Amino acid sequence: MEFVSEATPVDLLLHPEWIIPIEPAGVTLADHSLAVDQGCIVDLLPRAEALRRFRPRETVFLPGQVLLPGLVNLHTHAAMTLLRGFADDLPLAVWLSERIWPAEARHVCPDFVYTGTLLACAEMLRGGITTFSDMYFFPEAAAAAIQHAGLRAALGLVILEFPTRYASDAADYLSKGLAMRDAWRDNPLLSFCIAPHAPYTVSDKTFEQVAMLAAQLDLPIHTHLHETRQEIEDSLRQHGVRPLERLRRLGLLGPQLIAVHAVHLDLAEIDLLRQEGCHIAHCPISNLKLGSGIAPLTAIHGHGLNFGLGTDGAASNNRLDLFQEMRFAALLAKGASEDAAVIDAHTVLHAATLGGARALGLDGQIGSLRPGKAADLCAVHLDDWLLQPHFDPATHLVHVAGREQVTQAWVGGRQMLRDGTPECIGTPELLKSVNLWHTRIAS
Amino acid sequence: MEFVSEATPVDLLLHPEWIIPIEPAGVTLADHSLAVDQGCIVDLLPRAEALRRFRPRETVFLPGQVLLPGLVNLHTHAAMTLLRGFADDLPLAVWLSERIWPAEARHVCPDFVYTGTLLACAEMLRGGITTFSDMYFFPEAAAAAIQHAGLRAALGLVILEFPTRYASDAADYLSKGLAMRDAWRDNPLLSFCIAPHAPYTVSDKTFEQVAMLAAQLDLPIHTHLHETRQEIEDSLRQHGVRPLERLRRLGLLGPQLIAVHAVHLDLAEIDLLRQEGCHIAHCPISNLKLGSGIAPLTAIHGHGLNFGLGTDGAASNNRLDLFQEMRFAALLAKGASEDAAVIDAHTVLHAATLGGARALGLDGQIGSLRPGKAADLCAVHLDDWLLQPHFDPATHLVHVAGREQVTQAWVGGRQMLRDGTPECIGTPELLKSVNLWHTRIAS
Repeated sequence: MEFVSEATPVDLLLHPEWIIPIEPAGVTLADHSLAVDQGCIVDLLPRAEALRRFRPRETVFLPGQVLLPGLVNLHTHAAMTLLRGFADDLPLAVWLSERIWPAEARHVCPDFVYTGTLLACAEMLRGGITTFSDMYFFPEAAAAAIQHAGLRAALGLVILEFPTRYASDAADYLSKGLAMRDAWRDNPLLSFCIAPHAPYTVSDKTFEQVAMLAAQLDLPIHTHLHETRQEIEDSLRQHGVRPLERLRRLGLLGPQLIAVHAVHLDLAEIDLLRQEGCHIAHCPISNLKLGSGIAPLTAIHGHGLNFGLGTDGAASNNRLDLFQEMRFAALLAKGASEDAAVIDAHTVLHAATLGGARALGLDGQIGSLRPGKAADLCAVHLDDWLLQPHFDPATHLVHVAGREQVTQAWVGGRQMLRDGTPECIGTPELLKSVNLWHTRIAS
Repeated sequence: MEFVSEATPVDLLLHPEWIIPIEPAGVTLADHSLAVDQGCIVDLLPRAEALRRFRPRETVFLPGQVLLPGLVNLHTHAAMTLLRGFADDLPLAVWLSERIWPAEARHVCPDFVYTGTLLACAEMLRGGITTFSDMYFFPEAAAAAIQHAGLRAALGLVILEFPTRYASDAADYLSKGLAMRDAWRDNPLLSFCIAPHAPYTVSDKTFEQVAMLAAQLDLPIHTHLHETRQEIEDSLRQHGVRPLERLRRLGLLGPQLIAVHAVHLDLAEIDLLRQEGCHIAHCPISNLKLGSGIAPLTAIHGHGLNFGLGTDGAASNNRLDLFQEMRFAALLAKGASEDAAVIDAHTVLHAATLGGARALGLDGQIGSLRPGKAADLCAVHLDDWLLQPHFDPATHLVHVAGREQVTQAWVGGRQMLRDGTPECIGTPELLKSVNLWHTRIAS
């Protein structure tokens, strides 16, 4: 019997049924506990030892639940929740040029972005997502919503050549993005990416500037790449090379590059991306819904290329739900390669956490339950009758559970989802404002 | 103002926000109501008129909810819920011969089937499924569970050549199946299929007998077909023809045939199946999870071949959830054909209801909200904040809602799901019995 005085005081001690720490890989722990202090993970250790070693200010028992790192949504356009279901079952060209772009031209403004992003944050927390990478107009309005909701995010400094209500040309987008970064860079939950929209909307000159700035400011580059066959054919016609080769020549490849979608890659391209240390944001549902195709995930993973998972925006998904994305990633890879053993549950869980964190350069801070990292966590209820029986928590997360089984989530040690309800959904005016936008967009 | 005495008394009047009746096709009605009497749909009509015309014993308001026919799960092995998550991420041959078959040989008995089927019924009701087509051992135990749960089902008279704990050879399976049918045929919620397991487990002689019996007894034939490349290669080696051609020669093709999986079909085969009036049970998730491949759904639908949706068993899915199946069917077809416009929401909703009913020969009784049909219904909540905003109830059902949004379900006018809870989940002993089986299987 030790003296209580020998126990270390901590803010929070969590006692879940199981823990999947992601690091070390492929492990599911039973009878373990997680200690959190000052927003960070202090220790992950056997329950009996945890009860002896720590004197917590708050104790949370999570019976029948699995605790894992908060999920990382590596690609979204958060504010587009307001266009959820606005245009479905349409060919990509019609969807974009006749529905989405005109709607954006009419409606997108700081309030649209604030409201849509806050709704997105609530939805993401509901599904255990604690970090996301965003690319949209008026990112300072998104930053305000994210701060309000209490999530962690990597905000894109979006760049296009053509004018929108947000900015007039590439230089204007860039200067507005940099000003946004200056205004918000002291926020410990925010980081930034340079986000040239895509090879077909950004010029060589701008890409060169992006490469230079990314190196100077040590920022990831987040861009749509090889999403559709059309994009590749157009590039061959206009530039004589495929978009990836064009970006290589312009000096964009390297560990800072996050290639979003990457549906159409041949093996040489996969190998090039791996050699350069690039990352893939795999968005399986969006790729299917827009008819883009099926990304070669088995080869991407087999070549050792790092990948995370992204929901894309709610107009092309239509849920910001990484549980769905995990399931689609695993199942599509098995089906497309006709091999049931590929992309197993732990691989998918890694992608949804540490894979995404690594792509964003945040793997020192989040993505696994290593002491010293931020306490970004989510808990999932596997003892729900609807999920019975269960034999392996990891495969149950990927193949059975849904976001509706997420119970609690913490960001930097602060509980932002409680018993399935995001703190920010109670925000006065949020749902009223969503309704107003709904009416305006529908009319 | 009319006199109340002129109003017709009915058992139930439902006032949902929207109704998707499936027939006529592609329609979503607002401000309509559905009248039910003696288990059948009496009328579907504008709300104002319904309030004038009917004097209901029970009125149910469903604000923010869409009412549609109860979903039809065209292929499952219901009792296998007890093996949910028992074997994942394994190559098909290992999964089947080293995990599933040995577990079945050890455990399957009438109590396993009763308990597993009752759990399956609860899960299916939770997700708006009111009818399913089952193929498993000890179907009389399944029948008892289904009767208890209050669902509608087409029970398979399963036939294999090899012995199991249920039967010793094809003749024994058949006689047991026919005895089961005799015992249960007066139950108005049960119908029957002859269910020869698959071309690789059933002999020519048995298939010929099946064809004869199906004609004599007017029963659908439910069989796995062209699920994997291996099955086709083996058939070419053993029989000199692909399985479908073998079945054609044996006289199996016709409107009574339900081809389950049908992953590997060429265009001539699709055309043959259509000409013969056969039906497909499309099981997209199982086909992916077991590495079988991606069925050519765009071509199947484009050729006018009728298809329904099936979950398969919980060991190869791992949810009995037609909302997931609808989403995968739509998205996979779009992605695989690289065309975002194919297999639209109404097509998928048709498959999940009337398509399945038609395959089972039950389209005169269920599958759409036509007066005279049974009142098999489900209601789905679209006003949940997590689903906001919404512009089209049909695409929202396919691309946004989940089974967790199903609120109520009726089978033949009896409410079997109430505010998200199946009546049968409260059955004393069900979850205790599931736990016992869980412990036994895990050990």
